[in-house]
Amino acid sequence: MSKKILVLPGDGIGPEITAEAVKILNACREAGLDAELEEALVGGAGYDAEGHPLPESTLAKAKAADAILLGAVGGPKWDTLEDLSKRPEKGLLGLRKHLNLFGNLRPALLYPQLAEASTLKPEVVSGLDIMIVRELTGGIYFGQPRGIEERDGERVGFNTYVYSESEIERIGRVAFEMAQKRGKKLCSVDKANVLEVTILWREVMNRLAPEYPDVELSHMYVDNAAMQLVRAPKQFDVVVTGNMFGDILSDAAAMLTGSIGMLPSASLNEHQQGMYEPCHGSAPDIAGQGLANPLATILSVAMMLRYSLGEPALAERIERAVGSVLDQGLRTADIAYPGTRQVSTSEMGDAVLAAF
Amino acid sequence: MSKKILVLPGDGIGPEITAEAVKILNACREAGLDAELEEALVGGAGYDAEGHPLPESTLAKAKAADAILLGAVGGPKWDTLEDLSKRPEKGLLGLRKHLNLFGNLRPALLYPQLAEASTLKPEVVSGLDIMIVRELTGGIYFGQPRGIEERDGERVGFNTYVYSESEIERIGRVAFEMAQKRGKKLCSVDKANVLEVTILWREVMNRLAPEYPDVELSHMYVDNAAMQLVRAPKQFDVVVTGNMFGDILSDAAAMLTGSIGMLPSASLNEHQQGMYEPCHGSAPDIAGQGLANPLATILSVAMMLRYSLGEPALAERIERAVGSVLDQGLRTADIAYPGTRQVSTSEMGDAVLAAF
Ligand SMILES: CC(C)[C@H](C(=O)O)[C@@H](O)C(=O)O
Ligand SMILES: CC(C)[C@H](C(=O)O)[C@@H](O)C(=O)O
Repeated sequence: MSKKILVLPGDGIGPEITAEAVKILNACREAGLDAELEEALVGGAGYDAEGHPLPESTLAKAKAADAILLGAVGGPKWDTLEDLSKRPEKGLLGLRKHLNLFGNLRPALLYPQLAEASTLKPEVVSGLDIMIVRELTGGIYFGQPRGIEERDGERVGFNTYVYSESEIERIGRVAFEMAQKRGKKLCSVDKANVLEVTILWREVMNRLAPEYPDVELSHMYVDNAAMQLVRAPKQFDVVVTGNMFGDILSDAAAMLTGSIGMLPSASLNEHQQGMYEPCHGSAPDIAGQGLANPLATILSVAMMLRYSLGEPALAERIERAVGSVLDQGLRTADIAYPGTRQVSTSEMGDAVLAAF
Repeated sequence: MSKKILVLPGDGIGPEITAEAVKILNACREAGLDAELEEALVGGAGYDAEGHPLPESTLAKAKAADAILLGAVGGPKWDTLEDLSKRPEKGLLGLRKHLNLFGNLRPALLYPQLAEASTLKPEVVSGLDIMIVRELTGGIYFGQPRGIEERDGERVGFNTYVYSESEIERIGRVAFEMAQKRGKKLCSVDKANVLEVTILWREVMNRLAPEYPDVELSHMYVDNAAMQLVRAPKQFDVVVTGNMFGDILSDAAAMLTGSIGMLPSASLNEHQQGMYEPCHGSAPDIAGQGLANPLATILSVAMMLRYSLGEPALAERIERAVGSVLDQGLRTADIAYPGTRQVSTSEMGDAVLAAF
């Protein structure tokens, strides 16, 4: 049966970069991928058209899809919206929650052709290849109670950081399995010297470990992890952590490569249904100028083929094509430097297509 | 009246490094500082001797002191203690809470003599001078309710991230005043696109801003802040944030300098009573071998003289003395490299003393 792919361009540079990724998806279809593409609105675009960042029609299409390709959401236009539930980010958070996309995979991979782009010394980051596994539908992002209320004559803001054993176990299994397929090292990040919720986290990780005897499990406090990412990032293979710590550490790890415009991500549920998106944001300051780098979105398509569509060979073809355009010296503005050839968003997409 | 200074050596390398700092404190007394020194147990040392990481006698002495010099707490010996309330860290957290030390100042300063030690490229970090102002007695570290309990047939861990307006306001004022004395730029870090508690945080920072018209206030999401610290750390002057984000970001910022053995910190209450300690930990692996770097602890004495003892001239003398031993090429193991002269912990202390 034909697979269903929903494309959600979103805001800012979202439409430009997803357009290039769709070119590649169409090439995959010509190469034998049996899939239908549909498009819908999300984020600020959803709010502008339908008054909600996750319109009901979009949610329905998302639920019916095998995989979703998301550009990016958000921008200054909506930052002042008084009603938080209408902000573009809530479209993204709503998709994660409604589709139960608890397993967020965020690779931080340094492309040898782009080693110069890192702010870290080459010997510290050359060959860097970390996979951060972030829990995405729990923790403090969704914990209840939450709000702002009056107490003892002043306002108080509060959120709840909460995880159940089963939530920890299912993300733990994703991470252990990922480590088995990679370097067999798993570092679980917590703050078990202060937070009870992460004491339970650590306990569950330890309980799972004997089921994966080929994986070496270690634990690290989140402050130390932030430090070690700067000091010696190559010590890490797979890192597993909760929603909030994962948000912070995966962005730091991505930035170690110096080329966040290159990094894809996947968010999966238990049925391998997934949402795929670049790690970078909607970059409204450069939207519509052909400056955006479409490679993270194109590489997100590769992840989609591998994790949701069962087409690892096509995924590899895309990854090789991206490597080849980098070898040719083609660069969008964010990764260009003297001696390389700067190309526009669509020229980059076309180059990947030609190399596919 | 004579000032009271309480010295808490703590665990691991704590005793060695505070011993060197006490040499400098004694030199200050000879130079006119009217102060009495006392010593007490905390952390694992407190637990071993009295069954508690913060013995009552220590707490009483701490309350009576004008300033506290702390080495470091913790080590593998106590990591397996079942009763969390007995862990060394709880000694530290207890001191912060009981003395109401809400204002944590963590400078991340790159010493030009140690520029090589950073894992970042020299042009990215040369001249780096960030002051992180971290709220230290609230937030998720102390929020109630907290714990691990059975719900619907499984265990659930939970903590509460909570701030009141007045808690935010008082740390905000510390940060605005710090910015006024420095580069006049303040970046408040939150996660206001997801967490209500930080929506209130941002609101209070904005409300305070007009009272400090010479300070330029900006806001940044914590994931972006972690990224920007790696990408372009020199964009920051003063950063203000809550307890948990401050824990993570200040360690990342410290590591940018490559020489965390150089970085002091101060934790202050509303009466300028303060606890001073190095940013690094208790390093049990190198304890007792004369390998530890005492400079962060010595520089913590300088902060103490400046913030709690009203002796800025003595503080500057210490800082100049530290600069001078670095100029002489003296280095403890952690910051040594070819062409410098490696010295022991006590040799380093003596060298600072000679240069004082
Ligand atoms: C936009 C925001 C809500 C989101 C998050 O915090 O999860 C983003 O930072 C991310 O990491 O995907
Ligand atoms: C030891 C630990 C409880 C402490 C903290 O998390 O505050 C430490 O990491 C620090 O930053 O001083």
